Amino acid sequence: MSNDNDPLVIFTPSGKRARIPAGTPVLEAARKMGVDLDSVCGGRGICSKCQVQPSFGAHSKHGITVAEDALTEFNAVEERYDRVRGLKPGRRLGCQACIQGDVVLDVPPESQVHKQVVRKAATTREIEMDPATRLFYVEVEPADMHAPTGDWERTKAALKREWEIEGVTLPPRMLAKLQAALIKDDYKVTLAIHSAHEGAAQVIGVWGGFAEPPLYGLAVDLGSTTIAAHLTNLVTGEVVASGGVMNPQIRFGEDLMSRVSYAMMNEGGAGEMTAAVREALNGLAEELAKEGAIATGDIYEMVCVMNPVMHHLLLGLDPTPLGQAPFALATNAALDLPARVLDLDFAEEAQVYILPLIAGHVGADAAAVALSEAPQKAEPLTLIVDVGTNAEILLGNTTRVLACSSPTGPAFEGAQISSGQRAAPGAIERVEIDPATKEPRFKVIGCDLWSDDPEFTTAVLHTGISGICGSGIIEAVAEMRMAGLVDAGGLIGSSEATGTARCRPSGRTHAYLLHDGSAEGGPVIEVTQGDIRAIQLAKSALYAGARLLMDEFGTDTVERVVLAGAFGAHISPKHAMVLGMIPDCPLEQVTSAGNAAGTGAQIALINRAARREVEALVHDITKVETAIAPKFQEHFVAANAIPHATDPFTGLRATVPLPDLSFNSGEGGARAGRGNRRKRRS
Amino acid sequence: MSNDNDPLVIFTPSGKRARIPAGTPVLEAARKMGVDLDSVCGGRGICSKCQVQPSFGAHSKHGITVAEDALTEFNAVEERYDRVRGLKPGRRLGCQACIQGDVVLDVPPESQVHKQVVRKAATTREIEMDPATRLFYVEVEPADMHAPTGDWERTKAALKREWEIEGVTLPPRMLAKLQAALIKDDYKVTLAIHSAHEGAAQVIGVWGGFAEPPLYGLAVDLGSTTIAAHLTNLVTGEVVASGGVMNPQIRFGEDLMSRVSYAMMNEGGAGEMTAAVREALNGLAEELAKEGAIATGDIYEMVCVMNPVMHHLLLGLDPTPLGQAPFALATNAALDLPARVLDLDFAEEAQVYILPLIAGHVGADAAAVALSEAPQKAEPLTLIVDVGTNAEILLGNTTRVLACSSPTGPAFEGAQISSGQRAAPGAIERVEIDPATKEPRFKVIGCDLWSDDPEFTTAVLHTGISGICGSGIIEAVAEMRMAGLVDAGGLIGSSEATGTARCRPSGRTHAYLLHDGSAEGGPVIEVTQGDIRAIQLAKSALYAGARLLMDEFGTDTVERVVLAGAFGAHISPKHAMVLGMIPDCPLEQVTSAGNAAGTGAQIALINRAARREVEALVHDITKVETAIAPKFQEHFVAANAIPHATDPFTGLRATVPLPDLSFNSGEGGARAGRGNRRKRRS
Repeated sequence: MSNDNDPLVIFTPSGKRARIPAGTPVLEAARKMGVDLDSVCGGRGICSKCQVQPSFGAHSKHGITVAEDALTEFNAVEERYDRVRGLKPGRRLGCQACIQGDVVLDVPPESQVHKQVVRKAATTREIEMDPATRLFYVEVEPADMHAPTGDWERTKAALKREWEIEGVTLPPRMLAKLQAALIKDDYKVTLAIHSAHEGAAQVIGVWGGFAEPPLYGLAVDLGSTTIAAHLTNLVTGEVVASGGVMNPQIRFGEDLMSRVSYAMMNEGGAGEMTAAVREALNGLAEELAKEGAIATGDIYEMVCVMNPVMHHLLLGLDPTPLGQAPFALATNAALDLPARVLDLDFAEEAQVYILPLIAGHVGADAAAVALSEAPQKAEPLTLIVDVGTNAEILLGNTTRVLACSSPTGPAFEGAQISSGQRAAPGAIERVEIDPATKEPRFKVIGCDLWSDDPEFTTAVLHTGISGICGSGIIEAVAEMRMAGLVDAGGLIGSSEATGTARCRPSGRTHAYLLHDGSAEGGPVIEVTQGDIRAIQLAKSALYAGARLLMDEFGTDTVERVVLAGAFGAHISPKHAMVLGMIPDCPLEQVTSAGNAAGTGAQIALINRAARREVEALVHDITKVETAIAPKFQEHFVAANAIPHATDPFTGLRATVPLPDLSFNSGEGGARAGRGNRRKRRS
Repeated sequence: MSNDNDPLVIFTPSGKRARIPAGTPVLEAARKMGVDLDSVCGGRGICSKCQVQPSFGAHSKHGITVAEDALTEFNAVEERYDRVRGLKPGRRLGCQACIQGDVVLDVPPESQVHKQVVRKAATTREIEMDPATRLFYVEVEPADMHAPTGDWERTKAALKREWEIEGVTLPPRMLAKLQAALIKDDYKVTLAIHSAHEGAAQVIGVWGGFAEPPLYGLAVDLGSTTIAAHLTNLVTGEVVASGGVMNPQIRFGEDLMSRVSYAMMNEGGAGEMTAAVREALNGLAEELAKEGAIATGDIYEMVCVMNPVMHHLLLGLDPTPLGQAPFALATNAALDLPARVLDLDFAEEAQVYILPLIAGHVGADAAAVALSEAPQKAEPLTLIVDVGTNAEILLGNTTRVLACSSPTGPAFEGAQISSGQRAAPGAIERVEIDPATKEPRFKVIGCDLWSDDPEFTTAVLHTGISGICGSGIIEAVAEMRMAGLVDAGGLIGSSEATGTARCRPSGRTHAYLLHDGSAEGGPVIEVTQGDIRAIQLAKSALYAGARLLMDEFGTDTVERVVLAGAFGAHISPKHAMVLGMIPDCPLEQVTSAGNAAGTGAQIALINRAARREVEALVHDITKVETAIAPKFQEHFVAANAIPHATDPFTGLRATVPLPDLSFNSGEGGARAGRGNRRKRRS
């Protein structure tokens, strides 16, 4: 078709080059050359998605010189478009400008279908746009009574003719809309086509004429405690609103197992919880839509990640099989379903994608973390820990990936702690204890000052000091251990043994006084022996899960640790390691991934290929069931001690361990076992 | 796998024979040999669907002798089955009995999947069972936490393992039912799988354990006036209830065009009519379910046929484009959709199949007639006429099939006739006029006696004589023509010209008095000049449509005429031909097909292959648009006269035409034209 005398066309940034016959429109050249140049109107000069920026003169990089007449002159269509909607200087419409000579054409990001978008979230990362829902403008043949085919059949023919799209289906409810749109706008129509899979495309939106309707998607991280969502423009990839609400199921049970129990004990209990979470999703969507100045009817897709119990409760499935072995899931595959099945008030034919579950305890949220953190692409052996009521743990590298969950219980979320509370304003979230004076200082959520700051008392007035949250209790226990207030077995010493009056009797054991607000009518916040035990249990479970995966992998060490989730974002890696929550690892290799599950949901929302990727990844993951692994119990017991000692000022591991104070050698007797082997920093 | 020493197995009635290794169960042998032997339980001795009847001794027909031990002995499973549920003498369960020697095995009809069922309807015909929905019993692997796949994924694996069925999908709403059924019945489950197309199967019903749930389908002929339906057992093919209701849309307009006008003139008018017809369908289903002693929730499929306007109104589409050229259909293809989309209260996942439309005026009802009457399989050139407000006309044979519709108007349904009424008790439906005395006699619906019977006056008391219906007016006009009361132009003679006082002045023309009930307070029933004109218009339209198709086909004659529809069932072929409604054809070749559209719906309901057949047939049909054919107008004008004369006693065409009375040569001047050329019987 082309020969050596044809003009040389070079597209940037792709760098693709080919000789293209003179007279070819730029858009057609791009298609022939496989260059990612967008178009909604099919080359009619309406949509402006195919804009390119030619650059003239000598291009030493590309070895050509571009003459001013390399493209045909600005034509009437471009002039009209520029007049009506404005065209940036130097820009051309790819469907109008034709090639006349050697040329270098830049495809600006907004003209690329597969543009990179940068998320505004905690972890800034680029995601390639490859949305499942896209707009297509077609001009349909008018009805012809000599060849009586229906509006939809002629629309299908137009999709094939103009876009080479075949096999699209039309949900019955869309037929009336299509009919009306065709009549109204002279057989010109813009369609939103959702393609869940290769070869499974359906029309989910119809507008008369050429339209640029608002087209939004919701990425949802449906946690047991919090439901978080991002509202995203499916065309630009821009996140226009983010927010969260409490999961209203909390009134049926704080943790997942209480909710499973509620379903088991109450006829219709699961149904109540299903209705509650669906209502909350609708409420959250409404809130975000308001913030983003759109209607909930403009939401055409939702991607949802969650643990298996939330998964079943959202879908209206019985969660009780998940309460006991063999933890039977009703379905574990990724799901594509209409939003209406979940009673969601989005666009009429809005679609929902739910990531696959990994196992009975390891949910779509863990799958989303895997998608976001991509352990299968990591060279260093990476341990990813997402801690909630269950810790979901992934371990792997390019060779293989393993997953398990570990029943940490809610202690890390501040529950089952004497002064514990959820992470909310007023909660102590950071703690330091002076190893010499044994005096604490702390920070509370909602106030930037440490408690020993002279301004603190005033600054903290509006939140108060109400309790201690998960990250606070972890730091408190680790600091207590480093300050010599707690021995390796986890026992709090008496005031005599520790030399501070803050270690005071509490029942038959001792408690460490962190803050006494009683003079101002506030609470007395202590770390009790029971709190230490709860944290020991939780961290042992977490550690044992990680160790189990390491055993399965055949390794004693990991090279990288990623802390995911709200917990991961707030916890101090140093304290986590002091406590023995996570295996030893160079401290600078411990990072926080923020809400990696939410990021995974967002990736799946705007990138369809990522859905296939996570499905394949989950299929290949080796699932390890902690509940039945004898080794788990062994690791759990071995991990009970708190043997770590780290220099609190540098965060570096002390070269010699602190002496075991052995307040009471009869309790907490398990010493640093195999599970807590230390590695010295060199 | 088999060799010449293996036992010879012969199945009847198929006659299939093969050598099968000794020890093979009969069911397995049948599958290997492609013999149609049913099974729901997959060979577990539960369902009894695989019963066979071995016959022993010498079989001269098959050339073998069957020894008494040709099958293994009656085993424990068969004994238990016989004890619990009863097995007919000599019957064996195909999944239990194994082959030991040469054997002849009869597969009784009830053991065949593709059994022939005989419809109880007007036209008795056999339809092969090949339902889209079938039951499958599977035993699913229990959940295994070491290989955590979901209930549905393991069910799919079982379907593949036990039935070699792949690619089945589960509607999201069915997931909870599957989960519950598996838990309840120890991972044994019976599934109703609906397979709309090859490769598009979905679960639409779930029952724990081995179940034989009621599984019913509704075949609906959705007419403008009447909605008729058959409730059919989808396993046996038995029709358990049939019935009809008035189409409640009548209150928005008697005929289709008034309904289109109603939609055009009233905001939300189409929606009102949509709601009305859906409600009527639910009501009819409820009534039939009651009669059949099932629940409407036991209805898993509906097949619906209707004209294009009813099609659009049922689907919630705008019918107004059908009111004018180019008669644009929103869709013309066959539709598969969930019943819930049509607000039908059937089984939760019940499916609807709607036959394809042929053209803007030629509906799925005509497609159903084509399916039922199969003109494409006929050697003789066959004209099929289904008369309602529109006549739908098919013409064809094995070479090709053509279709058109013709706007007959409602005269044939008794509307626009001075004393006209719908066919209902009290309506005159048969008329004879003595050519000598010019005196009429008639029959009314609801009474078996002719009006000249001495008992008639008493017998007709409970219905009364209220008017004249479509078949009655056709016979009246034809008889009037044959009795010389009407000339070829359609003009009624005066009492002087005709010699009967029954032809009396009526305005500026004359009317023929059929019945005077005024003495008893009843109506005076006349045939007026206006009535004749209305019938002339209607029959001319019908005839012109048929002629147009004949032109297209390139023929002047047809070899067979089939009168379909309620009209067809009641009209006298002789009178129709006298009137010139249908082209000349040997009288014995004119038959009535009863409600062929309803029969077509019934065929499509229980035979899935028939759906593909009608889709292909409709695709291949040549669509002829009467509204724009200049020839149509020509034929219409030419067909205006009533030129036929037939011996009323023998039904044979007189060898010489009756003289043209020419009461008024100035009116109805068009003579028997090309459209009414006669062919003498040889």
